[in-house]
Amino acid sequence: MKLIFKKDDLMSAINIAAKAVPSKTTMTILECILIDAAGSEILLTGNDTEFGIETRAEGTIEEHGKIALEAKLFSEIIRKLSGEDEIIIESDEKLVTEIRSGKSLFRIQGQDPEEYSYIPHIERTNYICISEFTLKEIIRQTIFAISPNDSNKMMTGEYLHVEGDKLSLVSLDGHRMAMRNITLKDKYSDVSAILPGKNLNEISRILGDEISEDVMIYFDQNHAMFEFENTTVVTRLIDGEYFRVGQMLTREYETRVTINRQNFLSEIDKATILIRESDKKPVVFNITDGELQIRLNSTYGSMNTELPVQKTGSDLMIGFNPTFFMDALRNIDSEEVTLYMINAKSPCFIRDEEESYIYLILPVNFNSADI
Amino acid sequence: MKLIFKKDDLMSAINIAAKAVPSKTTMTILECILIDAAGSEILLTGNDTEFGIETRAEGTIEEHGKIALEAKLFSEIIRKLSGEDEIIIESDEKLVTEIRSGKSLFRIQGQDPEEYSYIPHIERTNYICISEFTLKEIIRQTIFAISPNDSNKMMTGEYLHVEGDKLSLVSLDGHRMAMRNITLKDKYSDVSAILPGKNLNEISRILGDEISEDVMIYFDQNHAMFEFENTTVVTRLIDGEYFRVGQMLTREYETRVTINRQNFLSEIDKATILIRESDKKPVVFNITDGELQIRLNSTYGSMNTELPVQKTGSDLMIGFNPTFFMDALRNIDSEEVTLYMINAKSPCFIRDEEESYIYLILPVNFNSADI
Repeated sequence: MKLIFKKDDLMSAINIAAKAVPSKTTMTILECILIDAAGSEILLTGNDTEFGIETRAEGTIEEHGKIALEAKLFSEIIRKLSGEDEIIIESDEKLVTEIRSGKSLFRIQGQDPEEYSYIPHIERTNYICISEFTLKEIIRQTIFAISPNDSNKMMTGEYLHVEGDKLSLVSLDGHRMAMRNITLKDKYSDVSAILPGKNLNEISRILGDEISEDVMIYFDQNHAMFEFENTTVVTRLIDGEYFRVGQMLTREYETRVTINRQNFLSEIDKATILIRESDKKPVVFNITDGELQIRLNSTYGSMNTELPVQKTGSDLMIGFNPTFFMDALRNIDSEEVTLYMINAKSPCFIRDEEESYIYLILPVNFNSADI
Repeated sequence: MKLIFKKDDLMSAINIAAKAVPSKTTMTILECILIDAAGSEILLTGNDTEFGIETRAEGTIEEHGKIALEAKLFSEIIRKLSGEDEIIIESDEKLVTEIRSGKSLFRIQGQDPEEYSYIPHIERTNYICISEFTLKEIIRQTIFAISPNDSNKMMTGEYLHVEGDKLSLVSLDGHRMAMRNITLKDKYSDVSAILPGKNLNEISRILGDEISEDVMIYFDQNHAMFEFENTTVVTRLIDGEYFRVGQMLTREYETRVTINRQNFLSEIDKATILIRESDKKPVVFNITDGELQIRLNSTYGSMNTELPVQKTGSDLMIGFNPTFFMDALRNIDSEEVTLYMINAKSPCFIRDEEESYIYLILPVNFNSADI
């Protein structure tokens, strides 16, 4: 195999494929990127068996072939090479691979490409189309609410649901829920899929910011396949039935509060200075006509502040995990947010009129020492 | 005590004083910053007993007094406050301290200022004067060669030596030496002092970049005191007699090589991709007329490159720890550097004609497998 690349072209393909290469594994072949130039294109693949990425690299094929190269080493070598000279990659039948650029020559041992598993291919029957930018955004706006903890597998995933031209993406961790609802350009057959959160996160890092570029997502029983630009990503789905999200939602409320989002966020953020690590002190909101007081009391001290609000309904004093509240506020783009609450024991909803976003946060108990 | 500050003034004083506050200690009073507004100025002090910083903060004294506040908490609170509102700090006789800004109010428990130890004062007899910028530079250019390991106390320090108007600053760790020589604007009495490297490092972070601002450094038997702008820093000296640096230096050589510094650095840097953590593979330079070949061979692969040089004297093949070589090259500012070597067992010197810098690096053994 002999291939010639410009540095930037090769580097960006490596950066994409490497996102599916696991950092620690017992099978060294999985730590490799496969370079496949057997056909008319140069394809780079990373694959941890649950999650695979194949991307096309711009380059010239001087001699067809394949090789698997340890991803970290390969990536570091290419990164350090000068961008001025072309990069020549050449492997012999013993899999010894030379990487040349200018006067620099690296010689590393490749691995057997026949041991490498290609990403599975999915029937192109059941699919949707969405802009890269929108997909990237709705992932960012919901991903924080998945559970980092594997003990409930379902909570480590995001639930993607399509009905006609309506798409919703939902995550929840038992304390809060994040939901984004969008309207697609076309109507599609129904889709219900639970996508592993960590894979979705990697996909969002590869997606571009172009609103004009589309992603095709194909689904079968066990996989979802994302196709965009030069890249194909396949992820396994999480088995099972997701939580009944509809039952958690209510439009009833006793107290409604509209508040400047940025100020609200920054005042809660100040209060968290007084909380360290395992300390689970709640932030308490005391809501009266026209004013929301924020209070936090910990072993380190107390904090007190107030913000102007538009409020309708009953007065309310309610406590929250401040981090959960900040996560939601950070992922809303509007200048003002509206909170809907029933009482100090019932979930608080942050949503807009059209319900393009719905964030649910469960309150926490607080006692007189917390105020 | 009641004081009023602008956020930026207070924040920059905290950032300076906090550099002497130890992060972990058994005495909680040492984790505090002392605010002393008993006199006509507001002074902030951090002091870990070996190293102390006192700095003046701009602000208004409404009521004189003192308080010691936990440095990390104090600093985080001030950092998160908005820059628009003034900050009011008020302590009562029970040391409870209120920090107000806009509508935000923090209440934290202060500690007894009488338990806090002031920085020692040094006689202003034995001193030198140097520009802030120059001091900052020569620290940066030598500090990397101190030993991080406490087993030889002397090697954790830097040796400062003044004779007339000549100042030299030296560090060494048993494998290499870094030396900077400068000429001061005036002549002074002789000084020989071993300054703890980690304290010198903190000092260099506080020093400004102004070539026109001067630092006064006062010495007594056990301390050095640095005075500049609003700040006074006192560090204990390391006891004992430093290594005889003069005996390590020689101007003899068999091979002299002049090479482009940036290219040399970047080629050695590429070679280090093949070295991981504990792996101690040498980089080998094969020096012939007009050319320096760089070779590195490790379990991960091999690297080979060559650079044009001007060479006088014998051909030479010599091996080095690549990190030591890169450290020296990164801290030289000239476009070209000149290496002076005798043989593969003797130290290599990198120095300029005037000897404003001298870097000594011991070679390492290599065998045929390393080439």
